Amino acid sequence: MRHELNFWLLGGDQRQVRLAGLLAEDGHAVHTFALGPAGEGVREERTLAGAELADCVVLPLPAAGPDGRLNAPLAGAAVPLEEVFDALRPGQIVCAGRVDAGTRALAEGRGVRLLDYFAREELAVANAVPTAEGAVQIAMEEMPAALRGARALVVGYGRLGRALAPRLAALGARVTVAARRYDALAWAESFGFDACPVKELRECLCGYDLVVNTVPAPVLGAAELGELKKECVVIDLASLPGGVDLEAAERLGIRAVQALSLPGKVAPATAAAALRQTICHILNELGV
Amino acid sequence: MRHELNFWLLGGDQRQVRLAGLLAEDGHAVHTFALGPAGEGVREERTLAGAELADCVVLPLPAAGPDGRLNAPLAGAAVPLEEVFDALRPGQIVCAGRVDAGTRALAEGRGVRLLDYFAREELAVANAVPTAEGAVQIAMEEMPAALRGARALVVGYGRLGRALAPRLAALGARVTVAARRYDALAWAESFGFDACPVKELRECLCGYDLVVNTVPAPVLGAAELGELKKECVVIDLASLPGGVDLEAAERLGIRAVQALSLPGKVAPATAAAALRQTICHILNELGV
Amino acid sequence: MRHELNFWLLGGDQRQVRLAGLLAEDGHAVHTFALGPAGEGVREERTLAGAELADCVVLPLPAAGPDGRLNAPLAGAAVPLEEVFDALRPGQIVCAGRVDAGTRALAEGRGVRLLDYFAREELAVANAVPTAEGAVQIAMEEMPAALRGARALVVGYGRLGRALAPRLAALGARVTVAARRYDALAWAESFGFDACPVKELRECLCGYDLVVNTVPAPVLGAAELGELKKECVVIDLASLPGGVDLEAAERLGIRAVQALSLPGKVAPATAAAALRQTICHILNELGV
Amino acid sequence: MRHELNFWLLGGDQRQVRLAGLLAEDGHAVHTFALGPAGEGVREERTLAGAELADCVVLPLPAAGPDGRLNAPLAGAAVPLEEVFDALRPGQIVCAGRVDAGTRALAEGRGVRLLDYFAREELAVANAVPTAEGAVQIAMEEMPAALRGARALVVGYGRLGRALAPRLAALGARVTVAARRYDALAWAESFGFDACPVKELRECLCGYDLVVNTVPAPVLGAAELGELKKECVVIDLASLPGGVDLEAAERLGIRAVQALSLPGKVAPATAAAALRQTICHILNELGV
Repeated sequence: MRHELNFWLLGGDQRQVRLAGLLAEDGHAVHTFALGPAGEGVREERTLAGAELADCVVLPLPAAGPDGRLNAPLAGAAVPLEEVFDALRPGQIVCAGRVDAGTRALAEGRGVRLLDYFAREELAVANAVPTAEGAVQIAMEEMPAALRGARALVVGYGRLGRALAPRLAALGARVTVAARRYDALAWAESFGFDACPVKELRECLCGYDLVVNTVPAPVLGAAELGELKKECVVIDLASLPGGVDLEAAERLGIRAVQALSLPGKVAPATAAAALRQTICHILNELGV
Repeated sequence: MRHELNFWLLGGDQRQVRLAGLLAEDGHAVHTFALGPAGEGVREERTLAGAELADCVVLPLPAAGPDGRLNAPLAGAAVPLEEVFDALRPGQIVCAGRVDAGTRALAEGRGVRLLDYFAREELAVANAVPTAEGAVQIAMEEMPAALRGARALVVGYGRLGRALAPRLAALGARVTVAARRYDALAWAESFGFDACPVKELRECLCGYDLVVNTVPAPVLGAAELGELKKECVVIDLASLPGGVDLEAAERLGIRAVQALSLPGKVAPATAAAALRQTICHILNELGV
Repeated sequence: MRHELNFWLLGGDQRQVRLAGLLAEDGHAVHTFALGPAGEGVREERTLAGAELADCVVLPLPAAGPDGRLNAPLAGAAVPLEEVFDALRPGQIVCAGRVDAGTRALAEGRGVRLLDYFAREELAVANAVPTAEGAVQIAMEEMPAALRGARALVVGYGRLGRALAPRLAALGARVTVAARRYDALAWAESFGFDACPVKELRECLCGYDLVVNTVPAPVLGAAELGELKKECVVIDLASLPGGVDLEAAERLGIRAVQALSLPGKVAPATAAAALRQTICHILNELGV
Repeated sequence: MRHELNFWLLGGDQRQVRLAGLLAEDGHAVHTFALGPAGEGVREERTLAGAELADCVVLPLPAAGPDGRLNAPLAGAAVPLEEVFDALRPGQIVCAGRVDAGTRALAEGRGVRLLDYFAREELAVANAVPTAEGAVQIAMEEMPAALRGARALVVGYGRLGRALAPRLAALGARVTVAARRYDALAWAESFGFDACPVKELRECLCGYDLVVNTVPAPVLGAAELGELKKECVVIDLASLPGGVDLEAAERLGIRAVQALSLPGKVAPATAAAALRQTICHILNELGV
């Protein structure tokens, strides 16, 4: 990455505010639009004039808000995405998160180079850490007993499970990992966790004080929840529609918490730092 | 400990409620007074008649409330401690926590054997775990970044410091321990923490994201707090009057949190289990 | 897996001896040939008569020895592989490790179902643990200082690196991981290790007390080794030809150790248990 | 400690050789006698002339060898301790390890200030780390299975037990701690280990793969060893006469290893660094 670049951050929330600050600290010229004040060294722009000069334009995660316009919760007014892309030049680099079809069409129409940072593996991995920490925090808040000595079950052993299980174990919980694949089970055992094949999940559910689901599939339905003891706390980290039947949990008197988008909520500074690093990687790969 | 004993729990809060349940699960006869309902197998008494038959009477922590009467926040009416001790028989075993002079005088006047469970080292050690977990929880709630990668300073390396430092490190923080004695510093280094002599504390304060004080002495005054960076979170776990100048922190714009009596707040089930175990030890030593 | 199966173990070393014992303990009928005595409940056969009745035939790792015959270091006499396969029946299940082309051709000629357990991911993962422990043991034996406080570099972050880095860190070493891919570097950072892109490896080599290579490519040549300090210990875990220029190391006075096939050497019981589990998985998948 | 001091190291082994090097690196003038060559910047003396000018004289650990003379295994000739003390001046600071009555009498006769570094708590703590690492190394060398998944018992929870138990746990062993005092058991549980009162030791001995004794008292006699399974490895770290009946172990076919003075053997550089630090503390306290 060249030493000083020109960034424009359009829309976004606290993460983008912090990202702007981090990029400015790195010595880059940073402009924001529809983001609100972002601190020293960052120029807050009222219009998109000049955006076409940016070496890199950064759109939020997701780029489009629920109304289909620019996702800009901190801005006073709604900005149509068409207006955003009209202000850019063909060939310009635009980094955006979880890009939907409409945004992609606009980008193609304008001929910009649209890169989805949310699709990058290293960002997903980096976000697994604050997600896992957030899950630990929720477990501590909800459980009537300490984690030390608690029996904890982590369902799924992808990125989230691999970040979460060792943290729970390090705090003194006895951790079981439920996974489908033999190699995932072997990994779990290699770190000293107990392993349970998902297909035998129902038989191994009794006795836990904490169950954290990371699998985006209906894993913990009424039958499974019925096997849990009454004081067990269930946390669902899986992206919507999630993997826990929350209604059944309520019916059964089981405390179940759905936790989404934890990095931005529990550790916005960390989430912003991960975003900065990933954007650096993207620009490096493009030879910028 | 004989298999079935007769316990009377007089006054107390959620911890005593859970303690009653645990003792009943162990197969003991459990009576409560001035505590409110405590679940299955526990007899809630309206008067103290029969208390003199108890093998062990348990008073809360502390035994006397702020009004000098029995510490019974869950009871409808105030009970003078004189009335409590009048209902007991000479030689009877009474376990109480953090006993003050007035209560001790009453006990001696009645000739009961008063034992302070709060003075037991194993209870203090057992309570260090939920306290440390509570501090981790507060750190996660207050810090804008993840603990992983954070620089954390633990001031003091007694029971609390020894329970807290490894937990922070296990979550990926880089931990420094500040302590006075050479052997405490050697212990800290033996676990891979950085060590800082307390007398050099002021010079080593810059750069931390989290500072947790466990020393009940004025350790972090205005001068020390002034060395911290603005986003640093300070948690004071030391018993009152604490070791952090909270007013100076507010003046300096440093986020400082005083956290007291964490075990009962964040993990009442664990605190109750520790209490049960300590009372068992006391009774064992008395040959009951 | 059906409760009682008929196993024949042909050839092999201490791992197969222990595997025979484990399978017998599980209640299976176990026959060995060309393996030597394998303890209680295992029938040592003098001929291959009856091998065609086996539910599963197990060949060693690798199946063929350096002379092209059955790999049977504990047997008195050499057994041609042709003879082995002639004793089997078409369709019979044969599990073997690191199968070469010659053995595969024999298997196809005979029409047996040949399955390579060494190609199974879960076995590779399970073997990463004793390999990592073996590397720790060698590091302890070779280093003049303790691991606690040592600076350690793990080159490569595949299975071996992921098993080794946390063990070194848990013993108090400060661990850096060198890897090529951004997501591997993100994983390393997620566990609190320092991360170094492999392409910047040479600049980050100074200061280490221990370097462990896991990459089967020429990573640590004379130029890289020359950056190390004199007391640094280098361990090469990569399969042949390895990734460390051992001659250059000797010339430079750097202590370098090549360590191969550690599971069978440092933890034969663990290696045998991993083999048993993998063979169970294979038979389960085949519906046996 | 003043910036440049004059040290004389008399006698000793590899630790003193390394200590000499470390002190020279720190910028001190370092003389050795009866120690052999100690590298750059260290003056090897043929006589004791000039020793009375030293700010600090360092004697080995122990100061007297088995023959009652200066403990100087690397020197060519035997040196009577009388000769050593005759060369010193009254009031001179002499640091020595594990001082016996004879040496102390000589020191008093000469009027030197004799300080026993081996009696310093911080040195004992610092030495617990390489001792614990040495025990891990021996366990890895002797056990037929990996530590991960092994059941390990640590007898005693003083300095050694506290250094060893977390290392075994971090490598994936399931650790039980046997101790006498309730608070030691509470500490063990606070870190997530299982706890066993020493008086119930015999009942809880079955099932372990590794037993490490740290208690210098007859803890593991024939009756206790008879409860162990045959493949269990026993390591005795307790100072002589140790706590394991080695003859009974041999008779019972149990593999038992006595390991003494591990720091100097497995990590002389670490042992020397700990010595340097302790001598610095002593000199600091004396205002040197």
